[in-house]
Amino acid sequence: MNAQEMLAVAVAEARAGLAEGGIPIGAALFDRDGVVLGRGHNRRVQDGDASTHGETAAFRNAGRRASYRDTIMVTTLSPCWYCSGLVRQFGIPHVVIGEAQTFSGGHDWLAEHGVEITIVDDPECVRLMTDFIAAKPDLWFEDIGQD
Amino acid sequence: MNAQEMLAVAVAEARAGLAEGGIPIGAALFDRDGVVLGRGHNRRVQDGDASTHGETAAFRNAGRRASYRDTIMVTTLSPCWYCSGLVRQFGIPHVVIGEAQTFSGGHDWLAEHGVEITIVDDPECVRLMTDFIAAKPDLWFEDIGQD
Repeated sequence: MNAQEMLAVAVAEARAGLAEGGIPIGAALFDRDGVVLGRGHNRRVQDGDASTHGETAAFRNAGRRASYRDTIMVTTLSPCWYCSGLVRQFGIPHVVIGEAQTFSGGHDWLAEHGVEITIVDDPECVRLMTDFIAAKPDLWFEDIGQD
Repeated sequence: MNAQEMLAVAVAEARAGLAEGGIPIGAALFDRDGVVLGRGHNRRVQDGDASTHGETAAFRNAGRRASYRDTIMVTTLSPCWYCSGLVRQFGIPHVVIGEAQTFSGGHDWLAEHGVEITIVDDPECVRLMTDFIAAKPDLWFEDIGQD
């Protein structure tokens, strides 16, 4: 499975979040054979849960694992510091990112610490976030902790 | 409320987690007036949830907030990279840590980025972790993503 094919799973999650009235960011954790271990999307609005970003949802839904050395985190948007910290702590070696234009989190920091970073620069990911930020700026700034 | 008084709430959470058969790490998010906004403990064992560390539990249980500029994160153990990333992303300006002897996460990095760090060096926090790591080393290494 290539990056674009894996990204399609994360984009489907982002679209699902949008359809629920939520923040359109999705993610999926894959193994190296292209098997989805967990997938999910931001649930701030749906569950009133500030802790569930796309990446943390995918990570949670992958269940308990002894190791993440053979996994790939795929996300529609550059991971924020919270989600970048998740990747570093659990030793996820590769992150595939839909886009890093509308928001740039900790992916350069992850690269400095040896994580492989693939930025797809996907037009649909950019459009999802551009439209969302224009429509609901307060919700977006809340989700990234900007007053 | 001083650091030791706030820490007592996090320690109570850690003890509750231990009593449930879980990992004895607890946390609480306070406002500057000493009001508990959210408290919680690691739930890897109890819920099969790898994403719920003490700090993320306290953060989730505090609900949705537009700003964290007036909050203090209190945790029994030095925050791992995942939880340190949470603190940085959401602009939590002060972290009170029970101990950083048995595990040292991202608190120096947070300090470099302007977060006030208070390490209480609490003997009970050290004992909780020392006993736990000796009793269940595999569970501990799983929780911090070390193969």
